Amino acid sequence: MTDTSVEPVERVLQVLPPEIVVTDPDVMEGYARDQSRFTDHAMPSAVLMPRSTEEVSACLAAAHAAGVPVVARGAGSGLVGAANASAGCVVLSLHRMDAILEVNAADRLAVVQPGVVTADLRAAARRSGLFYPPDPGSVEFSTVGGNVATNAGGMCCVKYGVTGDFVIGLQVVLADGRVMRTGRRTVKGVAGYDLTHLFVGSEGTLGVVTEVTVRLVPEPLAPHTVVASFGSLTDAGAVVSAVVAAGLTPSLLEILDRTTVQAVDAMSGMGLGEEVAALLLVQSDDPHAEELLGRIEGICEEHGAVDVARSSDPEEAALLMEARRLALPALERLGDWLLDDVAVPRSKIVEFIAAVEEISARRGITIGVFGHAGDGNLHPTLIFEDALPESRATALAAFDEMTRKALELGGTITGEHGVGRLKRGWLADELDPVAMQVHAAVKHALDPDGLLNPGSMLP
Amino acid sequence: MTDTSVEPVERVLQVLPPEIVVTDPDVMEGYARDQSRFTDHAMPSAVLMPRSTEEVSACLAAAHAAGVPVVARGAGSGLVGAANASAGCVVLSLHRMDAILEVNAADRLAVVQPGVVTADLRAAARRSGLFYPPDPGSVEFSTVGGNVATNAGGMCCVKYGVTGDFVIGLQVVLADGRVMRTGRRTVKGVAGYDLTHLFVGSEGTLGVVTEVTVRLVPEPLAPHTVVASFGSLTDAGAVVSAVVAAGLTPSLLEILDRTTVQAVDAMSGMGLGEEVAALLLVQSDDPHAEELLGRIEGICEEHGAVDVARSSDPEEAALLMEARRLALPALERLGDWLLDDVAVPRSKIVEFIAAVEEISARRGITIGVFGHAGDGNLHPTLIFEDALPESRATALAAFDEMTRKALELGGTITGEHGVGRLKRGWLADELDPVAMQVHAAVKHALDPDGLLNPGSMLP
Repeated sequence: MTDTSVEPVERVLQVLPPEIVVTDPDVMEGYARDQSRFTDHAMPSAVLMPRSTEEVSACLAAAHAAGVPVVARGAGSGLVGAANASAGCVVLSLHRMDAILEVNAADRLAVVQPGVVTADLRAAARRSGLFYPPDPGSVEFSTVGGNVATNAGGMCCVKYGVTGDFVIGLQVVLADGRVMRTGRRTVKGVAGYDLTHLFVGSEGTLGVVTEVTVRLVPEPLAPHTVVASFGSLTDAGAVVSAVVAAGLTPSLLEILDRTTVQAVDAMSGMGLGEEVAALLLVQSDDPHAEELLGRIEGICEEHGAVDVARSSDPEEAALLMEARRLALPALERLGDWLLDDVAVPRSKIVEFIAAVEEISARRGITIGVFGHAGDGNLHPTLIFEDALPESRATALAAFDEMTRKALELGGTITGEHGVGRLKRGWLADELDPVAMQVHAAVKHALDPDGLLNPGSMLP
Repeated sequence: MTDTSVEPVERVLQVLPPEIVVTDPDVMEGYARDQSRFTDHAMPSAVLMPRSTEEVSACLAAAHAAGVPVVARGAGSGLVGAANASAGCVVLSLHRMDAILEVNAADRLAVVQPGVVTADLRAAARRSGLFYPPDPGSVEFSTVGGNVATNAGGMCCVKYGVTGDFVIGLQVVLADGRVMRTGRRTVKGVAGYDLTHLFVGSEGTLGVVTEVTVRLVPEPLAPHTVVASFGSLTDAGAVVSAVVAAGLTPSLLEILDRTTVQAVDAMSGMGLGEEVAALLLVQSDDPHAEELLGRIEGICEEHGAVDVARSSDPEEAALLMEARRLALPALERLGDWLLDDVAVPRSKIVEFIAAVEEISARRGITIGVFGHAGDGNLHPTLIFEDALPESRATALAAFDEMTRKALELGGTITGEHGVGRLKRGWLADELDPVAMQVHAAVKHALDPDGLLNPGSMLP
């Protein structure tokens, strides 16, 4: 930290209530970064913990006046470094703004502050007989604000969509402290530009969200579950394609490849078997779930499934889902890990996983693939040794190859985790030069001094 | 037209292929405005009819260089003047770009040019066993490009959502002729800002859409239909609330008030009856439609429905839906008409319609209300005499009162038709001052010279 940066930060701190300012380095350490690998971060100059929209506005206005960068964060459970502190910045942690302001069954909506944990919103909706579908892997600890900032996905998306599909209105504090509302409380509405979805997924680079209005849906029935194992990855992939082509929409359709299945077996002793090349997990929460899953079982058998099991009992279903729950923990036990997040058109899933297997074999690096087969969003997970520079280099090279392969297949560099610092270098590979110029123009229109989350997403 | 404006337009025309330029006033007359009332328009200096993205780019680059305003249009079936020519402008008609480029069943998506008629896209999807839900009233003649520009809705929205919910990618030509792509072909994707939905609903003020990628859904079953009549508007409104509260999601839930029902009776001799205060039309295309509609019939009966009829036969269902189809034509026969388009939270529908009845009685003006009760989007239609200044004034005053009432109830000034020229004066009543500033900043970032559709949407 240089002298020139100390002074502006103190100008910020002196106008804020002392009880929302933290400068203890031991405390700040826990607010300096998210859960990503291969991303850099600095120590913040201070961590601000506002309790209201007014305090967020005061923080941003002061930082703007002093020219101090601001990095907003929710729970810090992100995986791309989109909440990593940059040099000289203040971190704005929204965790104190954790009130569920309204759950309205008559209008099927909820209004929450950004620090509300996603699982708490889901539970509050359920108490009103309603359902908030978004279920990122971090659902038990991530916050709604963080989910909005990254447009988080999850396993529900194949039927229900992503976080942004449920956000109908926001309160946002702009870079200079101005406060505005976007969207509305009605189901439909087209008055003006869709600023709501401009902020959703903008990773804290355009403003700070201080209130979120989400639509809720009727609570579905308890899901029925099918697990099918395959001796060939191609067979499993063909099932996914056939399910899509048959017009069937399960509420969950996940895939685990051989590497992941073996890691799960090694960890849990579930005995899924050495011969399993791929596992498909399917759920339906429809009123006609039995018929739908019956058809999917038929497709599995037509495509040579080795084993197919079904349950409508919630406890038994949880047991069947255990392999998916353990996928990442099991892979993590194999070494240091780097989780990728690409999406490809659903017709290209087999081709993508085959390419990953080829990369893994050629580079001699373990890569477990699991993810949301139903919408083509996969999480190839590299296992490497962080202490060995050549192992890190191999991991990074394989990561680059996989990301480019997804683009080559008409896919995207990130399906649900975001760009952040991790994928920043690949953004211009996906977007064309004019789209990159428009990103810069929009950023400049809303944050002309470039103070919001510098170093994340944009070049 | 002044001399100063002639010269710039000629600079535009001289660099374009003559076969895409129209300056015949008789032809241009048909391209000067949309179907709105109470909106002003000028005669364009020329109508440009590009056949490709490259030609659109050439048109915009030339207009930009010469400082000539550009008003893009689809079929011109809009109802708010968002495609009305402004003084000295060139109109850019996209009707020649009408190719369906791809219908991909494996990835459940379609790629179309903007001039494709919406019904043609729906038919093409159906030939692949797929469904493109958006069904604005103008579906048989409006274009996908126009639907995207206005984020058009329709009767499907209560279950399926609006146009924007199906758009996953765009090709856009910017004000200066630069061409870019937004979005992608995958189901999920969060690389960069959501520029796709910034352009959806922007009414041609930020760029011109030259290609649209939409997601498709599996083709649903033929719908079952229920029609219920009520002796009291409050009862019908209570049914809508109870359906929402019970977690039931029909695929269509429309309402017609007494004035509309009587107009339909007068036109068709359907004999719905003098005593009918409100008619509800409900459809479900779910596999469990019979059970769902059975529950809704029960709710209708609990709330004192006078008559309830159901059919699963498509022809009989079409007969039951006839009253809805005739709503606007029947009201149009009563005089000159001005169609409003507001949306309120679903719990406020009864309160809104009651307010309209009060306004109608107090001002002595006929107002028929019909619309999409299932998502709170209503179309109160004023009947007046255009030739009488005092009748026009009364209509406009009632229109203003209804629009403000929707806002007062937590609603929006436009649910699906857009702002255009008609609702421009009310936009700042819905959006807060900072949101208006952000609209101006975004507009300036993408169209710094203000050449795209001036006079529409923004102040």
